[in-house]
Order: sequence, then C-alpha cells, then structure tokens
Amino acid sequence: MPKKPARLTGENRLIQLLQDRYQIRHPLVKKGIGDDAAVIRPGNDAEYWVITTDMLLENIDFRQQWITPRLLGFKSLAVNLSDLAAMGARPRCFTVSLALPGGLSERWILDFYDGLAELGGPAGALLIGGDFSSTRGGIAISITALGESLNRKVLYRSGGRVGDFLFVTGTLGKSAAGLRLLEKGCGHSRSGPQREAIQAQQKPEPRCEEGLWLAQSGMIHCMMDLSDGLSMDLPRMCTASAVGAEIDAACLPVFAEAASWGLNPVNLALHGGEDFELLFAVPGSKAGLLEKSYPARFAGITRIGKFIREPDTVWIHETGKHPRRLREEGYDHFRQRTLPGNEG
Amino acid sequence: MPKKPARLTGENRLIQLLQDRYQIRHPLVKKGIGDDAAVIRPGNDAEYWVITTDMLLENIDFRQQWITPRLLGFKSLAVNLSDLAAMGARPRCFTVSLALPGGLSERWILDFYDGLAELGGPAGALLIGGDFSSTRGGIAISITALGESLNRKVLYRSGGRVGDFLFVTGTLGKSAAGLRLLEKGCGHSRSGPQREAIQAQQKPEPRCEEGLWLAQSGMIHCMMDLSDGLSMDLPRMCTASAVGAEIDAACLPVFAEAASWGLNPVNLALHGGEDFELLFAVPGSKAGLLEKSYPARFAGITRIGKFIREPDTVWIHETGKHPRRLREEGYDHFRQRTLPGNEG
Repeated sequence: MPKKPARLTGENRLIQLLQDRYQIRHPLVKKGIGDDAAVIRPGNDAEYWVITTDMLLENIDFRQQWITPRLLGFKSLAVNLSDLAAMGARPRCFTVSLALPGGLSERWILDFYDGLAELGGPAGALLIGGDFSSTRGGIAISITALGESLNRKVLYRSGGRVGDFLFVTGTLGKSAAGLRLLEKGCGHSRSGPQREAIQAQQKPEPRCEEGLWLAQSGMIHCMMDLSDGLSMDLPRMCTASAVGAEIDAACLPVFAEAASWGLNPVNLALHGGEDFELLFAVPGSKAGLLEKSYPARFAGITRIGKFIREPDTVWIHETGKHPRRLREEGYDHFRQRTLPGNEG
Repeated sequence: MPKKPARLTGENRLIQLLQDRYQIRHPLVKKGIGDDAAVIRPGNDAEYWVITTDMLLENIDFRQQWITPRLLGFKSLAVNLSDLAAMGARPRCFTVSLALPGGLSERWILDFYDGLAELGGPAGALLIGGDFSSTRGGIAISITALGESLNRKVLYRSGGRVGDFLFVTGTLGKSAAGLRLLEKGCGHSRSGPQREAIQAQQKPEPRCEEGLWLAQSGMIHCMMDLSDGLSMDLPRMCTASAVGAEIDAACLPVFAEAASWGLNPVNLALHGGEDFELLFAVPGSKAGLLEKSYPARFAGITRIGKFIREPDTVWIHETGKHPRRLREEGYDHFRQRTLPGNEG
C-alpha cells in the first residue's frame, strides 16, 4: 500500500483507506470509490451509468425546526443530483430510504415525497423505490441517484493539469450565510438578501444543466461539486489530479450581503459548505472560448484561480496580505465542525 | 385513487400511498415502487437492471453486543442481495452509506467493510462507492445494490394465479430462533443447533443462485424474499397477484430444534422474520418437473400451500384445528414489534 500524506484525517483518510483496500479492476466499473459518484458501463456500447448516494441525518445535516418536510425532500434529492451534475450525467432515477421516529405524521411523509417530486420531476429523476424503517433516534434519509452519460462524456475529479484555470458556478457562501441566519433564529420579517440566503440553504438548486453542458463542451479537464466548502473540496480535486492550486480571494463570487449581518463573506465562501456549486478546471487556452460560449441562462461562472505544480497544496492570495496556505476548515463528518464566518 | 382495503396499516399502507401517488409510466422504468426491487431498462436491447435499497439501524435492526462488525457488514449486504435474488437478478455492484457515532474505531469500520467484501466478492457484487456521516445516535447503514437480469428474465410479486403451488427455500424461523437465543443472552457453550440458529440470524446466506435459477427456469409465476415473516410477506404477494392463499402448517419447513428451547417452531416460521428465504409460486402442472430439475446443491425447496381465489386472504390449516385466517404478526416498522415464539 503506498504511503499516504500524513495530513489526511477524518473522512478523507477513511475514503483513502477504502479506496486502497477495495480497488476494482473489472470491466463493469469505470470509476469506483473516491469521486462524486461511481461510474459503471452496463453494456459494451451503452451509455455509462453514474451512481451516487448521500445520507442526511437529523440534527447533523438538518433540524426540523429550520426546514419543512417538503423543502427537506427537495434538498435531500438536490445534494444527490448535484453529485450527478458534477460528473456531467443526466439524472434518471433514484431510491429513498427513510428512517422515521414514531411521532411523524403521514402528512409529513407525503410532504417530504412531494418535495422530492418537485425537484425530481423537472430534473428527469424518477422515484423508483426505497425502504422504510422506524427509528428511536432522529430522522435518517438515504438517497441513491442514478444518472446516465451523454455520448459517454463524464468528468472526474482527476484529469486536471498544471496551469488549468479554476472556475466555479454561482455564488459561494450564500447557503452558509442562510444557515447562520437560521441558527440565530432570525425572525420572519426578512430582507430580500436574507430570504435569498435561507433559500440557498433550504432549497439548493443542483447545477444539472450546467454540469451536462460543461461535460459536453469538451473543454473541461475535471469537475466536482462543492458540498463541504471550497477549502475542503478543492484539496480533494488537487489530490485526485496530482496538482496544487492557488486561488485569489478577490475573485471569489462571495455573497457580499452577509457582511452587513456581521459575517465574513470570504470565510463563508471558503469554509461554509453546502453551496452545491460546480468547481471545474479548464486549460488556459480554452478559458476565453468557454466564457464566450457558456449559455447566459445558466448560473454564472467565475474564474477563481489555477492549478499549480506543488502537489496537494492550496495557496490563497488576499489583497494586502502575504499568500497563505488555505486550511481545510469546511465540513468533515469526523472532525469537530468549525463555525466560520463569525470571526469577523 | 382507487379505494384501498381497510386492513392496510403501517408500512404496507405507506407504500401503497406512494405507489398511487408516484406511478411511473416511462420507458426507462419497468417496475417502480412496490416490489422487492425496482427494475429499469437502461438501453433498448440491453439487460434489465434491478435496484434495491435497505437501511439497517442500530437497536432496531441489530445490536452491537450481538453481532461483530464483520458479521454486520455481511448481513447488511445479504439483506440487499436477497432482494436481488427475489427478482432473479445477478448481483453486480453496491454502494454503502454509513452514519457512525464518534466512539467507533477505524478497525471497526474496516472490519465492517471486510464483512461486505466476504459476501460481495463471491456473489459478484462490487463495492463502488458510498458516503460517510457522523451521528449522535446509533449506527445507520444504508446499502443500495444493483443487479442485472439474464436474458431479461425477472420475477415479480405479481403474476401468481389461482391454483399455483407455493414453495419456499430453506428453513423458516431459524433466524428468529437465533434472535431469541441472543436476546436471552445464551452463553458461549452452545449446541450445534443453537450455533446454526445464531448463524442464520447473524450471517444469512442470500439465495442468489437459487433465485437466478428459478427465474431462468421459466416455471415460476412470481417470487419474493421472506424478510418480515411469512405472515407479513405472503399477503403482500397475494395483494400483488390479486389472489389469496392457503398454507398447511404441517408442511412448513420449520426449525424443529427450537421447540426444545421453549419456542414454538410454527410460530417462528410464520411470524419470526429475517429468514431471507425465497417464496415463489409454480403452476400445478410444473411443480413436479420443478422438484425434479431443481439442483440438489441448492437450499432445498418445500411446497407449503397454494394460491386460492379469495383475494387478500391467507388461510392456515393445522392438524386437529379448524382452518383459521393467518394474522399478520411479522415485522412492521410502523407497528409494535410482536415477539412471537414465546407463547408456547
């Protein structure tokens, strides 16, 4: 077994261990453990199928007082479709396993499924089955979503090269800002930006069309979705592509309105998590063409940095400061959660 | 929405509600909600893919003091492969989502995955991905397994006809007997039958080869696996096939040794659950041929009854008693768990 970098901790370390132990060399499997989703090729000349699974737990991933069952259904599927988007796959179908405590009403359950359908319908993801359990603990939701490639064009976290420009879709840190508002118990008379932040937190829109378009464009080297925060996710992409990265804080598409609520928009963008935006790398020679041809109706894209030679290292440049190494302060299930954004 | 029989409660009712609300008419989906697994046809001339998902929760589905992590891994995959077997599908790959409390060691996690591999390897099911979460509650395990048809021959719960003979594989009630032993804290000096019962509970062998053979035989009308107990599962097959059933208690392949431990083997077979044996229906004209051609190396099959005209009704015949309607006393996540077998 190859020696692993010592800095691997928690979730990353576990995944690396499993990846080493359960390496698959089998014609069925094009990509196993270690990306946003697995990729299989069911038939010789068929499209690839892309499979992802995510578990959401009450009081870890959500709180009932902060989200309605319908929004929870929507979001539970969104985090899975975001993984499919990150591979450039079209959503096709999904299963849902639910563990439910005794007190939940039938209404609650049906509202949850309506939320699934609200997103799944337009996205083309059909509910095909699932499983029910009772639990004495909190609600547990596990969704597995299947997508299909188009012309077998899928994108991985690997494939990035030194010099590639790094782009993200949408705004970073908005969802985390919304979470802070919910945590503070911000009342019902919310400003427009506050509502927008809370919507990003409760009802994230997975970038399905964007992901598919980017994969089809042929201009992208690698892609992933941002679920745990840029400071957690970008190093994963660097590791997979065997490169390092530098990003420019001034370029980040931050959610500036958060500053007026006493939050630091750059920290939220770096460490907040749950953005469900796409992060991708484009060779410098194609960046201009990409920006020109990228459809205006999609969530906008922003260039935030580039890949560099120094492996597994992410530098951040901030105006008036020395470049510093970006610390991984996003969400890791097996470390204490940091609560960024409050330090001013 | 068609009126449902009033007797539907708990889990069955929920599934029926969802089946009505999310009926799928789409070329991709051959079978959605309501069977042991979903069936999709990814390509026009490709094999069908069969998808099943099951969640196992600590202190609901298992207790850490009664099972090692390795056995837990084995069993978690077994319950899923049993669903694939019930469709006649060949296991191909699976994903695993794990929610883990803080105190669990890395060793525990790797042992769990070794248990998955111990079954998955020989069964042809490759671990392709998953998800980790932390939890403040108990361990939660969610597996989604994918199987493939052979010559597009899959079996459903529907398709049974009046007059079909009902068969099961293996022994019924052995796993439940094992659970009772574990509940009683039965020590380490166990007899052969006690070890056998506990093995059935901790390390159930899914009937993958049997299921595939039965589906390929072309003699079977419908099939399912027995996970919640015959008294819960047979009515589900009856509903799906729009028939009733009668079974003969004297014919049930019970685990007779349980009687010497103060348990009632017939009650365990009817209501115990977690047998992970196959239940299937064969037209009377083919039953003899089936019995003759069924491979001797497989888990044996036993004829236990037949389908009758009276829909949604299951009669049980016991020597020296009037025929009585079989009550659904198996495992329902949304009803109180009954503890059969102790009533003598």
